[in-house]
Amino acid sequence: MKTVTVNLLDRSYQIQISPGLLAGIADRLEEMQADKAVIITDNLVYSLYGKPIISSLKKKNIKYKVIKIPVGEEQKKINTVVKMYDKLVDFQLPRDGVVIALGGGVIGDIAGFVAATYMRGVKLVQVPTTLLAQVDSAVGGKTGVNHPRGKNMIGSFYQPKMVIIDVLTLLTLPQKEVETGLAEVVKYGIIEDESFFNFLEKNSHLLNAKAFKNKKAIPGIMKVWETIVEESCKIKAKVVSEDEREETGRRMILNLGHTFGHAFEALTNYSRYRHGEAVSIGLVAASRLAERMKLIKSEQVAKIIGLLKALNLPVTVDNLPVNKVLESLNIDKKVRQNKINFVVPTAIGKVKIIDQAPLSAVKKVLIEVGCS
Amino acid sequence: MKTVTVNLLDRSYQIQISPGLLAGIADRLEEMQADKAVIITDNLVYSLYGKPIISSLKKKNIKYKVIKIPVGEEQKKINTVVKMYDKLVDFQLPRDGVVIALGGGVIGDIAGFVAATYMRGVKLVQVPTTLLAQVDSAVGGKTGVNHPRGKNMIGSFYQPKMVIIDVLTLLTLPQKEVETGLAEVVKYGIIEDESFFNFLEKNSHLLNAKAFKNKKAIPGIMKVWETIVEESCKIKAKVVSEDEREETGRRMILNLGHTFGHAFEALTNYSRYRHGEAVSIGLVAASRLAERMKLIKSEQVAKIIGLLKALNLPVTVDNLPVNKVLESLNIDKKVRQNKINFVVPTAIGKVKIIDQAPLSAVKKVLIEVGCS
Repeated sequence: MKTVTVNLLDRSYQIQISPGLLAGIADRLEEMQADKAVIITDNLVYSLYGKPIISSLKKKNIKYKVIKIPVGEEQKKINTVVKMYDKLVDFQLPRDGVVIALGGGVIGDIAGFVAATYMRGVKLVQVPTTLLAQVDSAVGGKTGVNHPRGKNMIGSFYQPKMVIIDVLTLLTLPQKEVETGLAEVVKYGIIEDESFFNFLEKNSHLLNAKAFKNKKAIPGIMKVWETIVEESCKIKAKVVSEDEREETGRRMILNLGHTFGHAFEALTNYSRYRHGEAVSIGLVAASRLAERMKLIKSEQVAKIIGLLKALNLPVTVDNLPVNKVLESLNIDKKVRQNKINFVVPTAIGKVKIIDQAPLSAVKKVLIEVGCS
Repeated sequence: MKTVTVNLLDRSYQIQISPGLLAGIADRLEEMQADKAVIITDNLVYSLYGKPIISSLKKKNIKYKVIKIPVGEEQKKINTVVKMYDKLVDFQLPRDGVVIALGGGVIGDIAGFVAATYMRGVKLVQVPTTLLAQVDSAVGGKTGVNHPRGKNMIGSFYQPKMVIIDVLTLLTLPQKEVETGLAEVVKYGIIEDESFFNFLEKNSHLLNAKAFKNKKAIPGIMKVWETIVEESCKIKAKVVSEDEREETGRRMILNLGHTFGHAFEALTNYSRYRHGEAVSIGLVAASRLAERMKLIKSEQVAKIIGLLKALNLPVTVDNLPVNKVLESLNIDKKVRQNKINFVVPTAIGKVKIIDQAPLSAVKKVLIEVGCS
């Protein structure tokens, strides 16, 4: 088993990574002296992983209740949370009870927020089952739901007591879901770790869509996934430890590719691109911006684009109007004191936050990635 | 000005106590680099203190929005919070904006929860205007609202960036409101500080209902109040620093008088007794229980009852059935692992948590405080 520690003073916790961890989840709860648990999940994830978890809880006599919601981002609203409070009260989950978030990013965000706000906070165990959640959303304490006028406008920073990552769950993921997670994985390599980037390059043939069809047949593939999740979590944990609540600016480096990416997503009503796809194109845009500002060598940009392509990730948009994207960039949540901070790579393994990018350069970059 | 620091690692903050602080509130916001603020308050408090605050904000060019709600505990529900999110989004309160909680405990709890959960937490400034809020609820980070089936079931621990206490606000409080706060003040003396208890005894003639009618005329009365608020905040800050989230049991000592008190309140649907009145009778019951268990000398119990009486606080209930109170004690939120923990005084300035009290002793105590 691999273990990554997130160092946050009295809120520190461990991420455990290994194939097969789900079946032993009750042992972890026993260690934290919890004898009552609510599992928040969605219908699909529950049908895939409910059984081993329930049987683990039963073996240890842990009382549990399962709250299942339909699959989808549209569940991420305050009304879903309010209904869950009723169910937790019904179940009489005590203050020393546990909420288990079993699923992808949407489930982690909703369940995390419920755990943060039920009885002023109960123990939260994140059990992410998608690659994106494993390498990103389940680590770092961001929880919350959307407001009709803005994503993640309602929420809190609330650290889990533990993150349990069973990499076997990756085997049941649709290829598209794996790819969307890989965009964040590539991001970690770019912001912090060249050798990890090289590892991804070397193994890209094992990770992309075509290879993924035969994934069970590839010898040693779980070891590769374990390393990918571990290295990604390490980098995320390090950055989060330095700036838990996005106050010092340090955590902002995790937004590499996201300022552009969010603009692409918002403009297309979050329906045309998966998050990771938008981030992938965003990574290209950020790299191109750095290139135009002579902050990074062109060969490095080519390597970044090459890896994204090798992983079957998109590197251009279709036909988005430049002016609309610029507008969308301005209302991005990352606006602070009316300046847009862009995170850009200066080499593979190094990033920089720039306060001001020339508008003309941003426009040219948008055209380079396919805007019209 | 008196200053008390609440030591909580990276969540530490100051409580500033002085007459007249409200008029300088914008200077404090300027220090924390906030140029946009939402004031959450109730109609009554706003009519009393709105003017000096608004004029302070205007002088410093701080953009503000006032959200006023009707007076009363029935506002403390999730629906109130959800409506406030809409208003904060309308106002476009940014992530580095401030929520000012201006009012008593209900306002502090609601506004604190909004601040904790809007955009994953914005800066919170508590400006308590009742004695109870100044010495208790505004300090320690408890925020939240009620659920139809339980008080404070939805909420979070969220520390303010600053607590600003203008003791002049005490002059406009109805006598009953002052008295209800004094019960908590006496509690602090009993749990931690005999000399503070003696100070209260010495000054009780200045603090009780009769004296309070002429309060403006009493020379030096603001100094007395400043000391009362300062000493109470010091004790609360110390306990909270040791056990922010009620995890180690240390913070439980603040529940002295509250286990019984909550039972009295709940049984009478929170309508017969103000919180402080119920706590006052609860302090008597806890002291009597200690006396019966030979943990405290009878003279000390007499002193406690004497001070409560001198402050015009009730020391007995009217006609509550013993069995109903016992039932109510069992469902108290303080139930952990099916044991009722009572906090009892062992001397003035010292308390002890007892796991198990003989049922017969509890019954006798209830009869002594007027149950039937």
